[in-house]
Amino acid sequence: MMIAYQGEPGAFSEQAARKYFGTHAILKPLPTFSDVFADAERHPAGFGIVPIENSLFGSIHQVYDLLLKHKLFIIGEVKLRIELHLMALPKTKRNSVRTIYSQLQAIGQCENFLSTLKNVKVEAVHDTAAAARFIQERKRNDAAAIASEQAARVHGLQILKRNIESNHRNFTRFIALSRKPVQPSGKVKTSLVFAVKDIPGALFKALAVFAMRDINLLKVESRPIIGKPWEYLFYLDVEGMPNRNPLHQALNHLEEVCTFVRILGSYWPFDDSAILRHRK
Amino acid sequence: MMIAYQGEPGAFSEQAARKYFGTHAILKPLPTFSDVFADAERHPAGFGIVPIENSLFGSIHQVYDLLLKHKLFIIGEVKLRIELHLMALPKTKRNSVRTIYSQLQAIGQCENFLSTLKNVKVEAVHDTAAAARFIQERKRNDAAAIASEQAARVHGLQILKRNIESNHRNFTRFIALSRKPVQPSGKVKTSLVFAVKDIPGALFKALAVFAMRDINLLKVESRPIIGKPWEYLFYLDVEGMPNRNPLHQALNHLEEVCTFVRILGSYWPFDDSAILRHRK
Repeated sequence: MMIAYQGEPGAFSEQAARKYFGTHAILKPLPTFSDVFADAERHPAGFGIVPIENSLFGSIHQVYDLLLKHKLFIIGEVKLRIELHLMALPKTKRNSVRTIYSQLQAIGQCENFLSTLKNVKVEAVHDTAAAARFIQERKRNDAAAIASEQAARVHGLQILKRNIESNHRNFTRFIALSRKPVQPSGKVKTSLVFAVKDIPGALFKALAVFAMRDINLLKVESRPIIGKPWEYLFYLDVEGMPNRNPLHQALNHLEEVCTFVRILGSYWPFDDSAILRHRK
Repeated sequence: MMIAYQGEPGAFSEQAARKYFGTHAILKPLPTFSDVFADAERHPAGFGIVPIENSLFGSIHQVYDLLLKHKLFIIGEVKLRIELHLMALPKTKRNSVRTIYSQLQAIGQCENFLSTLKNVKVEAVHDTAAAARFIQERKRNDAAAIASEQAARVHGLQILKRNIESNHRNFTRFIALSRKPVQPSGKVKTSLVFAVKDIPGALFKALAVFAMRDINLLKVESRPIIGKPWEYLFYLDVEGMPNRNPLHQALNHLEEVCTFVRILGSYWPFDDSAILRHRK
């Protein structure tokens, strides 16, 4: 079992892969999300894991667009609490830090902490683990990185200050991808994408096929259709399996009001109870 | 009349400001979207213009989040065709270009063209007009920028190749902001944001208040609620004025199923007929 992920050792995607696929899976770091999709699609025993949504930033649209472009299925999901720490070489003192490196979103998440610093430059690199590696490789004792605890461990850095994110209710949801769909039983979630016909109230009619059958809608996302300005694709997460009623009938009904419907996969939803305890 | 926009002279936002507010308005370039909102909110005679949606990339989420954070109204919209050109100092030949500078999204939009080039490095800067300025200021005859025709004019660059964007159906919609709402008559569009109650089928019920009254839904966008993982705010564009029926009644009805409703503004929709002719 080979699991492709975007980033490098120490990245949050690596942690998500370990959490979902376990400690024995072989992980394959790749530069871009597009590479992860291509890799999982190419190899018969290939899988992929990618972030799809962050609780502060919202959906990762590039991943939605790649789900449409590639013939892969969502086979599961996993959520991670995102904790960010300031880290440096073991002998670096906090007041000798002149530059802080991290990924753009991580920088945004630590805005409150960063605004308290004086005479410190903040620079964006392509991911948090790369920021930690950079400090190590260049032996930079005038600099620090914002990254995960895992990244500190991988690159032998010391944590100068823990949990510097402005809002601790910071979670990322990842999806696991495979060439073959899974057929889970019990309380199942299904992801799908559709384009509505050009008729009045089209989106309302599309959502009605679920509401009329008491099918819970878990998430709605819209994306532009390339080459058709101001027309949209809708991505839904709903409860149920496409081959069992009431979802089976709802999907037949959905076809009547859509020009295009595709099932992206059915899977067990991640149990939120543990991470939602953080909110109390 | 002072119009704040993000970027610098030659930016697409500057063109949008000119198109919407006319040639006599005084324009004020600012570094970030957040600065534009803060500036328009602070000055009694202040206005702002920001991009909200691109037909290839989708919504600009930071702008949605800023609409919620600030007390400004949307008073109008304007759409621009985004045309990107390769430009350099007047004496630079195409085959002496070793580095191309542009903004990240613009680079993505020219992927097909860029993939045909050999031994050329592509580097991202924070906006397209800044890339053009950089070439000029550093007198770089080994480099080119990808930017607008306007940016070439402002910085005295010569266009080496026109319209290098991969998909020409590339439009950005901008919104105009003011401290005071406008009261347009006729065929009007209203933007609003709401959070639904935690009841079954809540989003469906929220959309039903419009559908039942034959009110057209022009756009739906969802954004996470900070601090409440996996709960969302919904932004809608609908037809009509909030103080006139049927929208007036629909909004009363919407309050019944929502914990929060806010009107972001009513305005005349931009006439798409001219730009949609490009699609034929």
